Amino acid sequence: MPAVPIAVAWGDGIGPEIMDATLRILAAAGADIAPQRIDLGEAVYLAGHSAGIAPEAWDVLRATRVLLKAPVTTPSGGGYKSLNVTLRKTLGLYANLRPCTAYAPWVPTNHPGMDVVIVRENEEDLYAGIEHRQTAEVYQCLKLVSRPGCERVIRHAFEYARANGRRKVTCMVKDNIMKLTDGLFYRVFEEIGAGYPEIDKDRLIVDIGAARLATRPERFDVIVTPNLYGDILSDIAAEVAGSVGLAGSANIGTGAAMFEAIHGSAPDIAGRDLANPSGLLQAAVMMLVHIGQPQVASRIRNAWLRTLEDGLHTADMAGPATVRTLGTAAFAQAVIE
Amino acid sequence: MPAVPIAVAWGDGIGPEIMDATLRILAAAGADIAPQRIDLGEAVYLAGHSAGIAPEAWDVLRATRVLLKAPVTTPSGGGYKSLNVTLRKTLGLYANLRPCTAYAPWVPTNHPGMDVVIVRENEEDLYAGIEHRQTAEVYQCLKLVSRPGCERVIRHAFEYARANGRRKVTCMVKDNIMKLTDGLFYRVFEEIGAGYPEIDKDRLIVDIGAARLATRPERFDVIVTPNLYGDILSDIAAEVAGSVGLAGSANIGTGAAMFEAIHGSAPDIAGRDLANPSGLLQAAVMMLVHIGQPQVASRIRNAWLRTLEDGLHTADMAGPATVRTLGTAAFAQAVIE
Ligand SMILES: CC(C)[C@H](C(=O)O)[C@@H](O)C(=O)O
Ligand SMILES: CC(C)[C@H](C(=O)O)[C@@H](O)C(=O)O
Repeated sequence: MPAVPIAVAWGDGIGPEIMDATLRILAAAGADIAPQRIDLGEAVYLAGHSAGIAPEAWDVLRATRVLLKAPVTTPSGGGYKSLNVTLRKTLGLYANLRPCTAYAPWVPTNHPGMDVVIVRENEEDLYAGIEHRQTAEVYQCLKLVSRPGCERVIRHAFEYARANGRRKVTCMVKDNIMKLTDGLFYRVFEEIGAGYPEIDKDRLIVDIGAARLATRPERFDVIVTPNLYGDILSDIAAEVAGSVGLAGSANIGTGAAMFEAIHGSAPDIAGRDLANPSGLLQAAVMMLVHIGQPQVASRIRNAWLRTLEDGLHTADMAGPATVRTLGTAAFAQAVIE
Repeated sequence: MPAVPIAVAWGDGIGPEIMDATLRILAAAGADIAPQRIDLGEAVYLAGHSAGIAPEAWDVLRATRVLLKAPVTTPSGGGYKSLNVTLRKTLGLYANLRPCTAYAPWVPTNHPGMDVVIVRENEEDLYAGIEHRQTAEVYQCLKLVSRPGCERVIRHAFEYARANGRRKVTCMVKDNIMKLTDGLFYRVFEEIGAGYPEIDKDRLIVDIGAARLATRPERFDVIVTPNLYGDILSDIAAEVAGSVGLAGSANIGTGAAMFEAIHGSAPDIAGRDLANPSGLLQAAVMMLVHIGQPQVASRIRNAWLRTLEDGLHTADMAGPATVRTLGTAAFAQAVIE
């Protein structure tokens, strides 16, 4: 079989260094992929493409249907669209899976037992991008929730739970206030959940849900939630587990998928060989499973875990278990070895 | 001077027991108030008032302009409006102040140094209540942000910071996605902040902001934020500080104010003398400051702190520092003594 073509975007800020590190690890582990470079992000924005992506890149994406993406920077100032949102919507990536796991005692955390997967709706909600100025003093943004949108992501969450031996799916919404939109999401959760009798269902209002996730994350398993809550909840879960620098995500659609770290491009530490490539590496591991190379995926994951256990950490993971603090490239080398 | 008339709502669930406890403490401390009972909540909903408040109660509120309110239960099922939202909007309570403080070592927390005040916009955003069914499959909710709405709450946050010797105000928004609505909130934050040169300003995107609040709350001082984020952030801050059961809130308007605990009516433990009256008591302390009785307010706050320091706790505060676990009434008695 020929190597699987995947689109790869090096991104901005710390993007290039963590992507180099990740691809070196993938190559060393024998991943059978043929990376095709696409340009996304700041330079593309500034070249006049307001969404940060050029037409040629779309051609590559249409051909590969799989994208491994480093974080990008959106230039400040008005007129620019979020590239993440453009990609998610254009490629129809309706579910955003964000596993947040503690790696105690190797990475410091108050919640060693936590292992949560956030399944975030990825196309609708306030992210639909319908925003306007009504008068000089009043602005509006539309929160849009559709039944098919809810069905897709909620079914995905239950299927994921079933396939991965997960016991419970918790729905977090604010349906005491948004009775129609969030109410619909919860109604569909109940309907679809009925088809998965072996899986426990739970519901929490997102305010207290976020608070519980912050203080008692061990109690959660899979969480399914609308877009904006999922954005907030996944950053909370990742930080509580240890660091946003450790979490990867899979954006899944019917005909395409995109894999990325959940953190940003961190321009303040860019180019200094300080960044942790682990989030992007986790994303790449999910990608390998997705394209049918699960053995390579587990090989990488085990080597990565072994590196943490050996106390070889990047600066953001530093703690009592750290034996040596490594830069981005040296950390990647340690994983390879 | 005659006693200050205040409206008092006993609410549902644990409401009556924590209100009784709170009023006993207020009386014992010599608070010069004349409570006037109003009925709000479940029974009023079921009697046919879809917002949970009857016309007579509005008369009392118009006269007193101050409300001390226990949590209420909204009956499940459609057709009922949120009483909290109705009160906040009808009375024009534009700012919701929620101090979240750790009481270590008396109450267990991983963040002994934290002392955060969330100032939450309280009338606009998705809480404006504009929601509709567009087609059988599509529902919409409108997020509304106005310049005057932003100005009021942001000015309140800076004035509060100045009056209370607070050093920093952090604005949390999602203006990388909602460039108009959240963008306006942040622009007004910058404009108004310029008038407070002695106070540091900071801005965080709400996803990473919530995550930082969950893991490094010591770094925050005052946070000002739109309604929905404030709802989520204040539950996080209160839980991280120790328990949602400890936090009170002040809903402030130009012509009226409402004081309440931030937790709900907890029907599961209602009537069992288990509930912690501290959240409502903190709200009452804020009320006493508001109506010009700051000495009584500090007397109560000191007695309450002393009770915690003596290791006399309700069940939800139990930890290594607990000497005796008390019920609601006995805890109130301990504060009085
Ligand atoms: C960069 C931003 C548009 C994005 C989002 O809000 O979804 C990010 O926060 C994320 O969680 O992937
Ligand atoms: C009960 C509910 C309507 C309310 C809100 O969402 O504002 C509550 O969560 C709060 O924070 O006071």
